[in-house]
Amino acid sequence: MKVYMDHGSGCPVDINVLEEMNRAALEIYGNPSSYHSAGFTAQKTIAKARGQVASLIDSEPEEIFFTASATEATNLALIGGAQRFKNKGNRIVISAIEHITTINVAKELSRQGFEYQTAPVDSQGILKLDKLEELVTDKTLIVSVMTANGEMGTIQPIKEAADIAHSKGALLHTDATAALGKISLNPNQLGADMMTLSSNDIYGPKGIGALYLRKNLRVRPVIIGGGQEQGIRSGTENTPGITGFGVAAEIAKREMPEESRRLAVLRDRLTKGILTTIPEAYLNGHSTLRLPHNANIRFNYIEGEALVLSLDNEDITVGTGSACAAKTLEPSACLLAMGLKHEEAHGSLVFTLGKQNNNDQVDYVIEKLPGIVKRLRVMSPLTPEELK
Amino acid sequence: MKVYMDHGSGCPVDINVLEEMNRAALEIYGNPSSYHSAGFTAQKTIAKARGQVASLIDSEPEEIFFTASATEATNLALIGGAQRFKNKGNRIVISAIEHITTINVAKELSRQGFEYQTAPVDSQGILKLDKLEELVTDKTLIVSVMTANGEMGTIQPIKEAADIAHSKGALLHTDATAALGKISLNPNQLGADMMTLSSNDIYGPKGIGALYLRKNLRVRPVIIGGGQEQGIRSGTENTPGITGFGVAAEIAKREMPEESRRLAVLRDRLTKGILTTIPEAYLNGHSTLRLPHNANIRFNYIEGEALVLSLDNEDITVGTGSACAAKTLEPSACLLAMGLKHEEAHGSLVFTLGKQNNNDQVDYVIEKLPGIVKRLRVMSPLTPEELK
Repeated sequence: MKVYMDHGSGCPVDINVLEEMNRAALEIYGNPSSYHSAGFTAQKTIAKARGQVASLIDSEPEEIFFTASATEATNLALIGGAQRFKNKGNRIVISAIEHITTINVAKELSRQGFEYQTAPVDSQGILKLDKLEELVTDKTLIVSVMTANGEMGTIQPIKEAADIAHSKGALLHTDATAALGKISLNPNQLGADMMTLSSNDIYGPKGIGALYLRKNLRVRPVIIGGGQEQGIRSGTENTPGITGFGVAAEIAKREMPEESRRLAVLRDRLTKGILTTIPEAYLNGHSTLRLPHNANIRFNYIEGEALVLSLDNEDITVGTGSACAAKTLEPSACLLAMGLKHEEAHGSLVFTLGKQNNNDQVDYVIEKLPGIVKRLRVMSPLTPEELK
Repeated sequence: MKVYMDHGSGCPVDINVLEEMNRAALEIYGNPSSYHSAGFTAQKTIAKARGQVASLIDSEPEEIFFTASATEATNLALIGGAQRFKNKGNRIVISAIEHITTINVAKELSRQGFEYQTAPVDSQGILKLDKLEELVTDKTLIVSVMTANGEMGTIQPIKEAADIAHSKGALLHTDATAALGKISLNPNQLGADMMTLSSNDIYGPKGIGALYLRKNLRVRPVIIGGGQEQGIRSGTENTPGITGFGVAAEIAKREMPEESRRLAVLRDRLTKGILTTIPEAYLNGHSTLRLPHNANIRFNYIEGEALVLSLDNEDITVGTGSACAAKTLEPSACLLAMGLKHEEAHGSLVFTLGKQNNNDQVDYVIEKLPGIVKRLRVMSPLTPEELK
């Protein structure tokens, strides 16, 4: 049995999405900027997809700006936003559990003359609002707090963070990459001025993302050229990719309520199965304020990478943390921010479930994992004798 | 009969490319940064494609950095290069017939404290090397000259421009978007340190491009995040897009010699057919130093947009200039740079031929165009009586 439970790092493309993309690649190849039928057809196709993506977050089509990735959307929001409003101040605030993109963009901004502060989270990975309030000043341009954390699944108090930001005239940016298609999102209700959206996380194509920008809000472009996307993001429109994102958004909107319930049941079965069969295994993050498809579990005394590779040998694919930060082999910055010790953070697995997963697969993982954990613990010098 | 002759603005994706992309989208969806088989498979897939793209320009895989577009590659080359080497000086030089991306990036750099100069071209659209030499100084960081112009098809003296740049310690960047897959390109022979590459122009997918960076040359990243592409360009790798670009490059390398000869014969048939049947029609650009698939023809007394729309009514799709600059409705900056008058530049059509085109299609255009030109000239107040 092959079991893929690393949907937070990469998803297969929905077959219905792929069919529409193929049609676009073969038939709708005119340049949307061209003044001829082929161009007009491409324009209309993109407009339809923009509406589909907007609809998934109950926003307006003109508030959606396509980019090549969630990473690029976050760059545009933070660098473009800071540069656009730099006359107001020079500070941005991010949470301690942001994706490595947000962290590295904040560092880049500090090289461009801005300052950034990091708002801490509690032991369950939830933003400490009182600490955020202390950090946001009249000089703060943007507060960036992810909607939900991709590793821990913890859902953040965006509305409250937005109220704090707005009280000082700052914008609220939220990276909704992990949350999109899993929980319902509405930037108006959340008070988000900017929202990073990812396509692949909802079974759309890779290589496409979007930034939601509240109506009439404009940021400085990061990629400059022919002025596509209302001048916010240049580059010939990726018509098939945009089409695919649109179809994926439409499917996600339709299927989300039921699929999210199904995933939560499946995830709870997985979590319970693991925690009841393996000693010294603990759920990281909040027990209820979390995305329905996410389980982040800590196994004391062993390394996450060794666990991942051992599971891989059994055709079970899971993650250890953010794939985007995997190259460093450092323990998860999120887990450390929650107060876990270095060695605890090292021994965590991230299960992100998806459409393909079912009870049989979950049971297969529950069957295989205890033996693997036991074997690795026997080899580990950290393991107490009674666990070997 | 449907005739599409605007391949310079947008191309259909090759069916063989699409098949490999579909396989990647459905099967190779692991994150290349992940430490498991699904990730390793994605890594290998990307490495293969990198080799295929490198091979098309006789370079090394580690010299290819994937981006989401040619536009992004040019941003990375010029902004990243200028920022990286700003201790050496503050000047860049671009040619007068660069793509709007290069022009707008140069303008952006001037807002970031750099200066840019524009090197003129002659009446056939070829860079004036003596003028370039006057503009390049010890303070020049980058000289950017496109390999061949997408509108006029004129092939530029890159090697000579590179020698001038290098004599002052500047880098040579060339935008090869229009030339890739049409003429053979080798950055070493051309003396190019940076080269912008586009996928869709060789029947690969949209939404993917690449920057060639000479071995050991590094520029500052423009998109910041997880440090993909050796830290030069962040964002989860678009495995299907990269795969498709790779396959398209392999096909282009194999088919280019014969296909380019075929296109040149077809293009010459088109040009001759038009110039011999329509009075006061002239070829813009150089008669021989031009891309094999490009014909840029000027029809006095009428507007290019009206011609494009009239042809569109007959199911013939052509361009008026760079689609990326089409929104402005301004006459082609390239044609003006060559010394054409405003009204002459306005009346030009760009034919860019491709794989689907054949003799029958060319003859259909030659049959339809004279009547359309005649009708528009009859309506134009600029047309002399004897032509009506």
